[in-house]
Parts: sequence; C-alpha cells; structure tokens
Amino acid sequence: MIAASQVTVVGTGLLGASLALGLRQAGYDRPILGVGRRRSTLRRTARLDCFDHCLLLEDLEQAVADRSLLVLCAPLGRFNDLLDRLAVVHRPGVIVTDVGSVKGEVCRQAARRLDHPDWFVGSHPMAGSERHGPEAASAELFTGKPCIVTPGRRCAPAARRTVRALWRTLRMRLMEMSPAEHDRRAAMISHLPHAVAATLVRLGQRAGGLPLASTGFRDTTRVAGGDPDVWMDILRDNRDSIVRALDRMLRELGSLRCELADGGRGDAKVRARLGDARAVREAWLRSFERHCAVSGNQDHEP
Amino acid sequence: MIAASQVTVVGTGLLGASLALGLRQAGYDRPILGVGRRRSTLRRTARLDCFDHCLLLEDLEQAVADRSLLVLCAPLGRFNDLLDRLAVVHRPGVIVTDVGSVKGEVCRQAARRLDHPDWFVGSHPMAGSERHGPEAASAELFTGKPCIVTPGRRCAPAARRTVRALWRTLRMRLMEMSPAEHDRRAAMISHLPHAVAATLVRLGQRAGGLPLASTGFRDTTRVAGGDPDVWMDILRDNRDSIVRALDRMLRELGSLRCELADGGRGDAKVRARLGDARAVREAWLRSFERHCAVSGNQDHEP
Repeated sequence: MIAASQVTVVGTGLLGASLALGLRQAGYDRPILGVGRRRSTLRRTARLDCFDHCLLLEDLEQAVADRSLLVLCAPLGRFNDLLDRLAVVHRPGVIVTDVGSVKGEVCRQAARRLDHPDWFVGSHPMAGSERHGPEAASAELFTGKPCIVTPGRRCAPAARRTVRALWRTLRMRLMEMSPAEHDRRAAMISHLPHAVAATLVRLGQRAGGLPLASTGFRDTTRVAGGDPDVWMDILRDNRDSIVRALDRMLRELGSLRCELADGGRGDAKVRARLGDARAVREAWLRSFERHCAVSGNQDHEP
Repeated sequence: MIAASQVTVVGTGLLGASLALGLRQAGYDRPILGVGRRRSTLRRTARLDCFDHCLLLEDLEQAVADRSLLVLCAPLGRFNDLLDRLAVVHRPGVIVTDVGSVKGEVCRQAARRLDHPDWFVGSHPMAGSERHGPEAASAELFTGKPCIVTPGRRCAPAARRTVRALWRTLRMRLMEMSPAEHDRRAAMISHLPHAVAATLVRLGQRAGGLPLASTGFRDTTRVAGGDPDVWMDILRDNRDSIVRALDRMLRELGSLRCELADGGRGDAKVRARLGDARAVREAWLRSFERHCAVSGNQDHEP
C-alpha cells in the first residue's frame, strides 16, 4: 500500500476519476482529493463520489499536505501552467507524478519549473479510452496494464518508492526506463498507430468506403476517436520520435507495396510478413490477456 | 423469406456455420445442408447442430436440388477448384452465391468455369472475425452489417432476387455495385487496414514496444490476427486495387510526416487531420451502431 498521508489527483477526467476509484477499491483509506480547473467539471465529478473532497485549482495549496502524493492527470497542453502553479506550493517531501503520454518533455519541464524536482517521478500508465470525462471512469481501468515509470538519476528514493507503490496498488505491470527510451517505444506502439488510424479514416471516406465498413474498420480506427487536441499535444511533445516512427512505417509499407506489385516471389515475402505479424501478435496477446486476468483475479482475493 | 427449396452451404467454417444458424433463427424452415472438404471438420460441425445434414465435397451432387441456393463459403484460394466441381452438377435454376472478400476475380472465374453463369451472383457480407472454425459461429454475426451484392448484367432475375432475400433474411444492409467498384472500395476500407495493421505489429516488436502495448494497440491490430493464407489470397486477388490504396496511404502518411517535422503551420495541418478523422469516424460509427441495434431489435419482434 502507498505510504502517503493523502493522494491528490489534479485533473478529474477519465484517468483521474478512475485512479481514485481504483485506489479506493484496493483499500487505500486515507483522503483522496480531486482538483479541477472548472467549477462545472468539479460539480459533475462530485456527483460521482470518486473523491473525498473536490477543490478548484486556484485552491491547490489546500490540497498539498506533508508526505502527500500528487498525481497530475491533466492533458499535456496544460502541464506547464500546472507545474508553475504547483511550484508555488511545492516543498520537499511532497511527491509528484503524472500520467502524461510523453515523458521527455514532461520531465524536462518538471526539472525546470519545480524548485525541488527530485520529488517528481514521471509515470505513463498505458490505460485509456477514446471516451473521456469522469462519467466514463472505472476502478478497473488500470488493472493488468503496463505502467512505465521514469525516475531521474537524482530523484528521492521515497518518491520513487511511493510512485511505484501507487501503480502496484492499482495492479499495473511496472517498468522503469529513461524518458527518452519511453518516448521512442511509445511513439511506435501508441503514437504512430494513432496517426495511422486517423489516416485510414480519411482515406476510407474519400474512397467512398465507409458504407462498406464493419467491425474490422471500427476496431482498427478506434483510437482515432480520441480528442484531437489531446493527441496534437502528444504528437507535438514527442515530435522527433514520431517522425522517425513514421519514416520506418513509410519504408515498411513501401516495401510491402513493391512486393505485392511484383507478385511471384514478392507474394511469398508478403505472405511471410502476414504470418510473422500474426505469430508476434498472438504471442503478445496471450501474455497481455494473462496479465489482465491475473490482476483482475487478485481483486477477488481476501 | 428466401424462395429456395433448400440452402446448401459449401464450407462449414465460421461464416458457413453462422449463416446456417442465422437462417434457422430467422425462421427459414427448409433443409440447410453443410458441405465440407474434410471428414474431421464435418464431424466437428455436425456436433454443433447448425445443419440438417452434412456431406463431403465429393458428394456435392446430392446437395444440389432444383430451385436450391448454394452459398460458397470457402476461402478464395479454393474457389477455382470448387467452381470446377460445381460445374459438373450445376444446372439452370440452381442459384449460386459466395462470401468472398474480392469480387472481380471470383465473378470472372464463375463466368469462365460454370456453363450457366447467369445463375451466379457474387456477394460480400462484411462480417467476420479474427477467430475461425464453426465453434466461433454466431447467429448474429451478420446482423446489421453491410452486404455488397454484385449481380452481372445477364444474371437471372430469380437469382438476384433470391440472393438479396438471403442477406435480407440475415438482416444485413444491402448494397449493389459492380465487382470492380466493390474491389476498389473494399481495398481501402478492409484490405489496406489489414496490411497496415500487420506492419504496425512488426514495427512495434522491432522497436521493443510490445511490453508497453495495451488496449489501443490490441484493437488497432486486431485484424492482423486473421489467417495469413486467407489474407494472402485476398491481397493477391485484389492486387491492383490494394497497390493503389497503398500508394494513397504512402502519400497521405508522407504528407503528415512532413507537416509534423515542419512544426509551426504544419502542426495546424496535423491538428486539422486529427479533427477531421474524429468527426468522420464518429458520424460513421453512429450510423453503423444504429443499423446494428435496429437489426438486432427486429430479432425480438414476433
């Protein structure tokens, strides 16, 4: 369990509200506070009963206690403003983490804007939905999913320990790596697929294909239903890695295109690509589902 | 309801077995026969109770009656052999359709190999799964999904009428177009996404991204779990349209890559792409889900 006197969640949308629900379900019994930018969102959140107290961002000071843990669940585009507000009330011993999809830029800004950046540890829980808002929250959103933690070299051991305990409490699979390493891998596994899905939707429409579209198209393009502003922030903050990922995608698709156009031996190469992709995906999926099931089952243990 | 004396389903896998279950659930009360290539598959199918009788392909003649409807549910790779066997026992009045994902090649081969091709009408029900085999069958697999019918100019009116009635009975949304038009649109909405999903899986693995992958990656790449031999047949039979679709994809992704690399005004263009994709997808999804729900509800009507 988390050795923090209270947990303050800044940003009470899908991720923030799910985090509060998950902590509560896991048995965390200290106060969980929700901090929001707008009164209207806070009112919606308060009705859902995720948090012990809800506060406006302008009252952030009241949400920061000794040995408390702050989790920044705001979109990347609001992050710098949030860090500047936090800097005013932050002090050693107050542990801060976040849930941003890009880690290099977030960790750089935390180091630059906070007076005590050694109490900041970046996190990226790989959980989400194309739906948003606290109404879509679920105590199980994080269960069994991967979570990447990117502690800096000089981070306080207590900060690292507490942030790891937070995600373990939510039954996530923990990994540690550098922010740069995270951003390179996330570009390929999450940010590139988003750009690709959005492109498939637009091409499908232009070709008059949408009336023929069915469940395959629905699933392949599901992520393209995400908020374009949130995703633009991700693409901007992880620009270099995503451009490199796009270059690789262009090379691979270009090779596939030439093999298919050639036919003959080209067809054998295309067939090998399809076979390899299925084998790789099935092995990954078995492991992913096993983790989610195992973590889910713990829920029913005493 | 279908004005056919019996329905014979050749190929008793996921689609064939689902078709039989769906027809029965819709109240079709004439015989439904299943024809399979292998004894082992037929035994599995017989246990599932989808068909009134199961026959081996070598006994196809016994499954062809006057005014019967034959639905070819075999993979594209077996199609020519199947048509040759069918040609021996086919006669005017015996209506034939199929469920192949490519229509140009299938319709050309039917015209070439059957002595009475005017009784053949191509179909492509846009329903499926990355799972396969009769055990995965469902009476609801086709409900509310699009179905493209591609009758030739000289096809018998009774054939066209009966094939349309078949898919309507399964509560599909009917569209008619030429085989070429179908293949062009299906390349963009179904075959290209498959090639793209397979490529994303391979790139994700090579970049060490799989440990970070979660539900977004799972859904974006779901179709890449499909049988590589079945999909290779599709890519080969619709080669030209898919190569053109890949060229468009390469152009679009290349533009996106340059805009993102440029930043500044480029970012505004990328943001516009994401916004457009979400709006297009949401409008399509609303319509798709409404159709599936409406068709699903009919099920509960007397």
